[in-house]
Amino acid sequence: MIVVIKPRAAENEIQKLMDKIRIQGVDIHYSKGASQVILGLVGDTQAINRNMIASSDIVEKVLSVQEPYKKANRLIHPQDTILEIMGRKVGEGNLTVMAGPCSVESEEQIVSVAKDVQAAGAHFLRGGAFKPRTSPYSFQGMGKMGLELLSIAKKETGLPLVSELMDLQDLDLFEDVDVIQVGARNMQNFSLLKELGKIDKPILLKRGLSATIEEWIMSAEYIMAGGNEEVILCERGIRTFETMTRNTLDLSCIPIIKSKTHLPIIVDPSHATGIRWAVKAMAKAAVAAGADGIMVEVHNDPAHALCDGEQALSPVDFSQLMDSIQKISQIEGKVI
Amino acid sequence: MIVVIKPRAAENEIQKLMDKIRIQGVDIHYSKGASQVILGLVGDTQAINRNMIASSDIVEKVLSVQEPYKKANRLIHPQDTILEIMGRKVGEGNLTVMAGPCSVESEEQIVSVAKDVQAAGAHFLRGGAFKPRTSPYSFQGMGKMGLELLSIAKKETGLPLVSELMDLQDLDLFEDVDVIQVGARNMQNFSLLKELGKIDKPILLKRGLSATIEEWIMSAEYIMAGGNEEVILCERGIRTFETMTRNTLDLSCIPIIKSKTHLPIIVDPSHATGIRWAVKAMAKAAVAAGADGIMVEVHNDPAHALCDGEQALSPVDFSQLMDSIQKISQIEGKVI
Amino acid sequence: MIVVIKPRAAENEIQKLMDKIRIQGVDIHYSKGASQVILGLVGDTQAINRNMIASSDIVEKVLSVQEPYKKANRLIHPQDTILEIMGRKVGEGNLTVMAGPCSVESEEQIVSVAKDVQAAGAHFLRGGAFKPRTSPYSFQGMGKMGLELLSIAKKETGLPLVSELMDLQDLDLFEDVDVIQVGARNMQNFSLLKELGKIDKPILLKRGLSATIEEWIMSAEYIMAGGNEEVILCERGIRTFETMTRNTLDLSCIPIIKSKTHLPIIVDPSHATGIRWAVKAMAKAAVAAGADGIMVEVHNDPAHALCDGEQALSPVDFSQLMDSIQKISQIEGKVI
Amino acid sequence: MIVVIKPRAAENEIQKLMDKIRIQGVDIHYSKGASQVILGLVGDTQAINRNMIASSDIVEKVLSVQEPYKKANRLIHPQDTILEIMGRKVGEGNLTVMAGPCSVESEEQIVSVAKDVQAAGAHFLRGGAFKPRTSPYSFQGMGKMGLELLSIAKKETGLPLVSELMDLQDLDLFEDVDVIQVGARNMQNFSLLKELGKIDKPILLKRGLSATIEEWIMSAEYIMAGGNEEVILCERGIRTFETMTRNTLDLSCIPIIKSKTHLPIIVDPSHATGIRWAVKAMAKAAVAAGADGIMVEVHNDPAHALCDGEQALSPVDFSQLMDSIQKISQIEGKVI
Repeated sequence: MIVVIKPRAAENEIQKLMDKIRIQGVDIHYSKGASQVILGLVGDTQAINRNMIASSDIVEKVLSVQEPYKKANRLIHPQDTILEIMGRKVGEGNLTVMAGPCSVESEEQIVSVAKDVQAAGAHFLRGGAFKPRTSPYSFQGMGKMGLELLSIAKKETGLPLVSELMDLQDLDLFEDVDVIQVGARNMQNFSLLKELGKIDKPILLKRGLSATIEEWIMSAEYIMAGGNEEVILCERGIRTFETMTRNTLDLSCIPIIKSKTHLPIIVDPSHATGIRWAVKAMAKAAVAAGADGIMVEVHNDPAHALCDGEQALSPVDFSQLMDSIQKISQIEGKVI
Repeated sequence: MIVVIKPRAAENEIQKLMDKIRIQGVDIHYSKGASQVILGLVGDTQAINRNMIASSDIVEKVLSVQEPYKKANRLIHPQDTILEIMGRKVGEGNLTVMAGPCSVESEEQIVSVAKDVQAAGAHFLRGGAFKPRTSPYSFQGMGKMGLELLSIAKKETGLPLVSELMDLQDLDLFEDVDVIQVGARNMQNFSLLKELGKIDKPILLKRGLSATIEEWIMSAEYIMAGGNEEVILCERGIRTFETMTRNTLDLSCIPIIKSKTHLPIIVDPSHATGIRWAVKAMAKAAVAAGADGIMVEVHNDPAHALCDGEQALSPVDFSQLMDSIQKISQIEGKVI
Repeated sequence: MIVVIKPRAAENEIQKLMDKIRIQGVDIHYSKGASQVILGLVGDTQAINRNMIASSDIVEKVLSVQEPYKKANRLIHPQDTILEIMGRKVGEGNLTVMAGPCSVESEEQIVSVAKDVQAAGAHFLRGGAFKPRTSPYSFQGMGKMGLELLSIAKKETGLPLVSELMDLQDLDLFEDVDVIQVGARNMQNFSLLKELGKIDKPILLKRGLSATIEEWIMSAEYIMAGGNEEVILCERGIRTFETMTRNTLDLSCIPIIKSKTHLPIIVDPSHATGIRWAVKAMAKAAVAAGADGIMVEVHNDPAHALCDGEQALSPVDFSQLMDSIQKISQIEGKVI
Repeated sequence: MIVVIKPRAAENEIQKLMDKIRIQGVDIHYSKGASQVILGLVGDTQAINRNMIASSDIVEKVLSVQEPYKKANRLIHPQDTILEIMGRKVGEGNLTVMAGPCSVESEEQIVSVAKDVQAAGAHFLRGGAFKPRTSPYSFQGMGKMGLELLSIAKKETGLPLVSELMDLQDLDLFEDVDVIQVGARNMQNFSLLKELGKIDKPILLKRGLSATIEEWIMSAEYIMAGGNEEVILCERGIRTFETMTRNTLDLSCIPIIKSKTHLPIIVDPSHATGIRWAVKAMAKAAVAAGADGIMVEVHNDPAHALCDGEQALSPVDFSQLMDSIQKISQIEGKVI
């Protein structure tokens, strides 16, 4: 931790501050530059009361050197985390495809889509039973019934399930769900994250619309700190000034995440763009950029989808996308 | 609702789409321009399946004309909502000041701050018992004990309480809290909003870091749709590229909110700037811009605060701020 | 053009407005909805004084249906623009690689890099002679001498040149430069754009840091409106809240640009990320997303580069990148 | 300057780097922490080749401690800069009001507006002769004729003039203009800034749409480094995700600018909001936040303005605004 002292601070004030810092158990390297003093704190600086330092009147700024995350930190855990879910590997060296409709609508619909995406090569079936909607007047998902229909589709195809949990009180209903999704709007719902740290199921953690990469990793750390280290990160677009796409897909986060953490990262081009004809290009780009997987919305009848039909691929489109993805994965030397 | 058809769409495809729309019970005005056709939908367009239209291959875009909110809509409820909480009015014509520490730390601290802010003219005591923190390793608040200490401070001063609820399971503990705060990170925690719609207590709804004004109003609508119409909006800075302030305080939202809704709006300059010496300027600006109140962090010993001490005012600074605020309120003709 | 009238506007006021609009030579379709009136303007609406309408007190908003660009518009020019520059094709179906150092530093340096990138398969040599730098105290480029050294490198290798023009007064010095680059910070320097519309040389127009896709196309339109239709668009990252990368590379703009315009689009992953080890991933992603080319910084000795060495690839790294790029281009069926 | 070395870097590599740094003439404080080494560079670090350090493979990041600006730096020039322009003071302790139409349209119009704003108490007349417009097909201003009409208005009223320069080749035409405005889109047109550093006239430098405060100050530094120290900063809204206002007015920049620099700062609420009825609130807020002045668009007939009529105040509205502004200025103890 580095403490930049304000120019013209009185020397005795600096000494007082240093005394206060030292009794917290760290060493201080004092450097006097041309215009100001800099203190380098060495030792276990995570235990230090950073606020006490930052609110001192003689301190200009406090800079952290160490990353604030531990369990998610590649520095501490250099090996890639590779999850194994119902026999499928998720993580470095594998390309995982999760596909399915935005929301479950009927048995016929979900079973039909499940079979289609399986035939095209998808590894997981995604489908929403509880839907976070901006408007209280929009369709909010089928709830418990939706999860039951997902179970039927799982039985028929053998595909493991991914579905979003919005409320801890519904957790019991998710027994048959293999990967629990935390939506972008709940990425910093810390009560939810803490509870998910106590369960024994992989969590797919979507990046918040305005979350920095560091905040996103810190939310993974919340889950991991509780004991559940099976976290999959999912980039789904961030909020920017551009309005032609729903959000701006930040693919550069892939090399950054790979460098900072050991967790798998997948990409959702459907929510990011919100435009069917842009999904294919962005899915391919995600794979070329090194993502460990993609999550794509597929609907048997996009024009009559109850939510987000504009961004859903038809089974035929999805099948074509899988062809391209497989070729790029081969170049990258990945199992798909 | 306006549907812009893609240039060169076949006329019979347009007719088919129009048939599909008409059976949903609205009239269509058809306009053929130089390069494309535009359909104006007239009637109860909120009942229409917008997605079905948007995902049609011949549709370029769908534009909404009506606002998606009803209960929060000034058009439908032209009168300003003025709440009355323990004898204090909150809303147009009044300037409400909520002050107190970021987090409750001890009986001595909270009672002392409560008395100080009361003496300076504050109307509400704010204090966090449950704290949303980016890191799982940071102080998470005193929890239940924090709420008990707030109650003591309320007894001693008579000030009504504002405190943040993060988890529905804690709701019972908030009996003595007069205004329940929903934090920025939970603004789109729809499960939480729905439950708060069923209780009989004012809700202070902070704007999410990347929430548009419309999304923010829609979150208020979630609460109101459930039956609880006592919502106070709170601007606390949005996320932008600028890093010298923690967030960017969007004061222009005040005239917009006043024009679109009938709800009270207050401003939190402490979290927005994150810098003690910038709080005063922004608090005054908020009042001059027409805010119905401000929420300011005050701590008896900022340098030893357990959270966010960098942005807390000392009681002396707060008292000086109140002087300025009172003068500007007078110009604006407000009761303070 | 669609004019949304405010709810409760007086009918005679609406009639007056309609009269004012009609005398500008367009037809009006009048639709009366449940809560408000909507006017659909049909005819040559680009000639209309939009401001006069928007500033009327009874108007809520004015929505444009037609795109504001003409010459760049794919609707009007459905065929892809494919430029031919010194025998190399730039545009749909081709993958163009522009490579070279951020700034020209010496004859030895530029000739050496030129030979290296040529050997690896690059088609153009890029190099800065005039450098836009945030600080007046940073190295500002070699100027005229830099352009002379670029000419030498061109003679030695036969590679066409790309270099940035910052000031119209330097135009004469660019005789030997084959593609004139307009930097991100000058994307809306309209005086510069107008003059470049009069010359007979391809322009590489970088997207501004906070330019929407529409504004970017409008800047291309400025050049094209002057008569110079040889414009290459270059995405180089937009400004967002994320700080781990210098900017956020917006690859989703590729399918959008391809849909809205007929112009070639290339991607600069070096400036976007600012991180050497992230350039490779993003260059591959750009090609997979359908870009017509990439522009990459290569330096023979990145650690001693006079500018932006952190993002420059070594010739060896660049050569490896070219291998990957060639494989992805093959999948996409592109000539490289 | 602080250099954070990557964890696990070899000690002999660190020593080599330190040797390379030392020969550039600075001292190094070496700190070995639990997981990594930190180097504190002390001395004239502005002369150092930061790039050489940052591009080293063993360096994680380089943090600057000193501000990169000198002439604009309050640390170096603690006294507020107060300009005197035709007898009017601009800077700390004074509130300066610049008002007038977006663009000059006719002698009648500009003289009439000039007289109106003067009667209401404005100190400067603003008016555009050269207009930066997103579309090449929009009205581009009256050019030379516009400046001649401004001169007439100046003669009639005695008000000093503010007008925007877009192209250096027009500089001679600006002889009668008292303050030359650099528009937001030209804030980093470094060629323009350098030339304006050589003239003897105050420059009003608008903040770029996506410029950080530091970049904005650096652009002022460009002008000042050339010898012209008469720079007025003007906040006019930054680009964010919010679309209900044209841009987001960042009033928090006022205390920041006042703390970091000694230059006057004024605020333009008209361009920031783009909405007539929001201008008044934001103008008042700017004054309450400590701005040294405001710049407001006023038009005698907003509905027929040739540009930006939606945001122009009528003379009557402006006069009412001046009343409020004067009262707030009195509270702040400012001369108006």
